[in-house]
Amino acid sequence: MKSPGRAAREPQVMTRSMDEDRITGWLGARTPGGSRVLVGIGDDAAVLRPSREHTVVTTDMLVEGVDFRRDWTTPRALGRKAVAVNMSDLAAMGARPLFFTVALALPPDIPFRWVRELHRGLIDPASARGAHLVGGDLSRSEAGGVISITAIGESIGRRVIRRSGGRAGDLLYVTGTLGRSAAGLALLRAGRLRGRTAAEREALRAHHLPEARCAEGVYLAIHGFARAMMDLSDGLSTDLPRLCAASGVDAEIDPGLVPLFPAARRWGCDPLALALDGGEDYELLFAVPKARAPRLEKIWPPRLAPITRIGRLVAGSGKVWLAKDGSRRPLPRGGYDHFLSSVRPPTAPSVP
Amino acid sequence: MKSPGRAAREPQVMTRSMDEDRITGWLGARTPGGSRVLVGIGDDAAVLRPSREHTVVTTDMLVEGVDFRRDWTTPRALGRKAVAVNMSDLAAMGARPLFFTVALALPPDIPFRWVRELHRGLIDPASARGAHLVGGDLSRSEAGGVISITAIGESIGRRVIRRSGGRAGDLLYVTGTLGRSAAGLALLRAGRLRGRTAAEREALRAHHLPEARCAEGVYLAIHGFARAMMDLSDGLSTDLPRLCAASGVDAEIDPGLVPLFPAARRWGCDPLALALDGGEDYELLFAVPKARAPRLEKIWPPRLAPITRIGRLVAGSGKVWLAKDGSRRPLPRGGYDHFLSSVRPPTAPSVP
Repeated sequence: MKSPGRAAREPQVMTRSMDEDRITGWLGARTPGGSRVLVGIGDDAAVLRPSREHTVVTTDMLVEGVDFRRDWTTPRALGRKAVAVNMSDLAAMGARPLFFTVALALPPDIPFRWVRELHRGLIDPASARGAHLVGGDLSRSEAGGVISITAIGESIGRRVIRRSGGRAGDLLYVTGTLGRSAAGLALLRAGRLRGRTAAEREALRAHHLPEARCAEGVYLAIHGFARAMMDLSDGLSTDLPRLCAASGVDAEIDPGLVPLFPAARRWGCDPLALALDGGEDYELLFAVPKARAPRLEKIWPPRLAPITRIGRLVAGSGKVWLAKDGSRRPLPRGGYDHFLSSVRPPTAPSVP
Repeated sequence: MKSPGRAAREPQVMTRSMDEDRITGWLGARTPGGSRVLVGIGDDAAVLRPSREHTVVTTDMLVEGVDFRRDWTTPRALGRKAVAVNMSDLAAMGARPLFFTVALALPPDIPFRWVRELHRGLIDPASARGAHLVGGDLSRSEAGGVISITAIGESIGRRVIRRSGGRAGDLLYVTGTLGRSAAGLALLRAGRLRGRTAAEREALRAHHLPEARCAEGVYLAIHGFARAMMDLSDGLSTDLPRLCAASGVDAEIDPGLVPLFPAARRWGCDPLALALDGGEDYELLFAVPKARAPRLEKIWPPRLAPITRIGRLVAGSGKVWLAKDGSRRPLPRGGYDHFLSSVRPPTAPSVP
């Protein structure tokens, strides 16, 4: 979105007769800036005021047919999700969101109203969490659409929480509920695009509109409770081994403690399997020194998403165990992997 | 590239048996950091040391079938080009490159050696111009590949050069030669993937391996010569109206002054048409106050790309004119537009 503000009337369709300047001009004129944005959309690059904090940067891309289907979601929800998954990475470092850029590759026959709605989703404050859209790129795609976002945040007190800080003996916590997004995906795969019950709607909403746990991540960083943290994008059984490997420890999970989404049973899913292997929860997973845990549980603010202790870190080298009543067995890695699975499974599960 | 450093032996193919962690671990372990990179590839986000300068951010995406063809280039050259086009945007602000992230969407059957070579191109210092790869995302694509890069730089003395600073009376300059990249594209379209003569090789090289004019942009910013600047990515006849619109002026170009690539005539191209309408030159276009121009031309360092005065800004509202011997005619906008053209034209020009 490098082009000048030819923000004239709204274009109708994004076809061959529609040029990049008009689209980006229209979008740029409707993108609010912020006090730290000196130059936003419309120049070769954005210019942002400096800060004394560390800069925290992440990038995450959503690919049509892999991460989303246009017939399963609305462009507005898609824009919000594309932003939220990036803000979730900032949250996982304990960083405050500030800015983001978006690169879009879109089929040339896409209606302009689709782009307009996507843009409304991108700048929706509920997902951007205070971050401003400061620049972008718009390209034609010969196949499906791609939404690539880079988010920039800053540390608070030059403190960030890495994956590698966990130690044997730390207690493991997660925010929110696990498996809800995967329960929503199961509904979509079965052709249920709109929920009939409150639980179905909740699952679909969790899948379409995940909430980045920014306030929770910042709280944990400011108060120094978490010494290792990451967000759960690929499922606990895939993500937790990454935290363990980075920290040089094993983890033991008590399956009886994992905060589940039990309603998923109604459409034929195993809530524990969804919680362990389902992806896209975008909850935070973090390790807390055992001595600090009672205080954390005592003062955790009710305005934030609830936290649940699910297990602990133990001596080891990157493995994850399911532990109960003194015995344990390995947790096989079964989470979402971009090169192993797809939003288009060969067979759809049945839905009652 | 969020995953931990499982940088074991080199994977052979990027198929379903190949997981994201192994690829990103392999790449992450082979990506050099820098003194300002506190956390690089391998965590949820990168962490970068603060500076007192303004942060300058840009994003640019290359899409297969639109911006590149795998059978026309090497993965290494493609990686270098993807980085260079982003650094060119930083150069256009007069900013110094520091960091970049890359999001890749790739077909699952792509050979791993292709990814390895792409990565070698991405981190090639000749294109990165001192910037460090600090993070990324790797996704499967169901169609062609997409390379989305976000580059972060910093101002020098909190000074940046915008498109909007041009005034009537300013003289217009460009760096380097215009139309060389388009001359190379014409060869590719005609099936000439390797040059037989020095001129053909020069044109192909300009197309595959454009050089971002970072040193030139920084020099112009530090010495305060340019008061409006941009890079030429879509061709002079498309880009100059953008600078004019942003500055609220018209421009007059003297076609006899434009630095051409005359050898393109040998393969049937009009060098002036390529210079005006061809894209991807990634030269800088800038406006200099008339009184400063003699000094600029006098002290311009020979180690930098040559600069050429091509015309001037005049009162107006965003139009561009071809002016010669006291008369002028409008320059129609004929440059590259993502929604108007493609690297796959309906008919290929003939090559002798």
